[in-house]
Amino acid sequence: MSRLLQSWTADMNRLSGRTVTIGFGPAMFDRVRGLADRRPAALRPLPSFPGEAIDARGSHGDLCAQVCASTPAAAADGLRVLINSGREFAGLRWRQIGYRDQDGTADPRNPFGFRDGTANLDVTSTAARERHLWVSDGPEWMHGGTYLVTRRIRLLLDTWDRTALDAQESMIGRTRDTNRRTGSGHARLASGARMLRRSYTYDGGVDVNGLQDSGLIFISFQRDPAQFVAVQEKLADVDGLNAFSQHVASGVFACPPMDTLLRGGPTV
Amino acid sequence: MSRLLQSWTADMNRLSGRTVTIGFGPAMFDRVRGLADRRPAALRPLPSFPGEAIDARGSHGDLCAQVCASTPAAAADGLRVLINSGREFAGLRWRQIGYRDQDGTADPRNPFGFRDGTANLDVTSTAARERHLWVSDGPEWMHGGTYLVTRRIRLLLDTWDRTALDAQESMIGRTRDTNRRTGSGHARLASGARMLRRSYTYDGGVDVNGLQDSGLIFISFQRDPAQFVAVQEKLADVDGLNAFSQHVASGVFACPPMDTLLRGGPTV
Repeated sequence: MSRLLQSWTADMNRLSGRTVTIGFGPAMFDRVRGLADRRPAALRPLPSFPGEAIDARGSHGDLCAQVCASTPAAAADGLRVLINSGREFAGLRWRQIGYRDQDGTADPRNPFGFRDGTANLDVTSTAARERHLWVSDGPEWMHGGTYLVTRRIRLLLDTWDRTALDAQESMIGRTRDTNRRTGSGHARLASGARMLRRSYTYDGGVDVNGLQDSGLIFISFQRDPAQFVAVQEKLADVDGLNAFSQHVASGVFACPPMDTLLRGGPTV
Repeated sequence: MSRLLQSWTADMNRLSGRTVTIGFGPAMFDRVRGLADRRPAALRPLPSFPGEAIDARGSHGDLCAQVCASTPAAAADGLRVLINSGREFAGLRWRQIGYRDQDGTADPRNPFGFRDGTANLDVTSTAARERHLWVSDGPEWMHGGTYLVTRRIRLLLDTWDRTALDAQESMIGRTRDTNRRTGSGHARLASGARMLRRSYTYDGGVDVNGLQDSGLIFISFQRDPAQFVAVQEKLADVDGLNAFSQHVASGVFACPPMDTLLRGGPTV
């Protein structure tokens, strides 16, 4: 573990123009000798939610590496550097490429055609970051870190694109063109969420029925995965968008700050 | 057919910032009534090549639409416009998203880390375009058009990345860092190719063995698909890169010029 982190943190310093986030999954703490008592109580497998169809092959994992860049080629190259330098220590379970509409806003349009992330956590607020984003309790190696939750959410675009705009707006809870809140719908249901959401679009081609396999790689950062769980339990129950979407992959990872990674992450 | 082309050509005029190429596959001319005698003799299914493992589900098709843009979101949105406006007339057989390293050159590095497209057809030369790219014989609806060949070529990156640079350079036939021809290898074998190549990188995640599923969406444009076939027959036989790559999907399409599309394409 410490040799892998030495390689990866050295890579991270070399990968200019890219942002790398490293996380540790709950199963790792049982698998790697000597780490069983280092697992934060907050880091547990996510519960099952109604309606989901999680494919374990594209989910979970002991480690995660998120590589962000301004072009797909730069992101893919950066990820490959990590895969190669980690090859001696870890195998590749899944990888998923995604993109965001680079329109210069913090809430670009998602594949449903609506702005996404408008009522996001205000990361310019120190109070908001400390209350909802950065960890300050539990084991010391996670202090100043955050928890990453990722869900691959397939969006049924072939159905969505044949749904009338007023029905779409009612389900989303915002107007499409002006992004005005309408008072109900998904936006209102999710409005209790105090976490930093940053989702990407994935394009998986076509399924066996000839339907587009596209959607969101939903990613949220929070000081406790329970923040995600509370919102998702509510959404899984009553969100009208459930008819147009399905969660198909899932992961939760503990992401310590860089200086802790440099000292060995959970082995500190 | 003509109503579909009316929709698509109207879309193409609206999709600013994107380049759309429409093509017709060989099977369409048997399937659509009244078109049997419109098929150009040059438009035939590609032959089988040694070593390929073509998955028909991601191959062939009656129609193809290639949408290019400077960002993945713009390309995906443009494709979706065509899918939606064609839904009444055609189903979706496959789609594949890809990207090119946007380094400002005509020969960006491909996933093998080497420049690709250096010895490409010189499209600034009228003589080269007329001799190798644009169709001037066969049925009149294809005059001024071109044939598109696409091959999804999986590259075995996990093996490639553990191969010594001098062996890589010998197989490619170019030096990696300076892009100098070394006199043999893939570059020399392919040097007889007189077609316009423009390939994209795809990222398909991980296969069941934990290996990266990435590679090239090879695309070439030529006045006769036989130009591609001649080169590929040679490469399939003796190219050292065959140990690091496999063709897994295939398609060939006749792409008439825009003014012919506006008048109904092959129905003209």
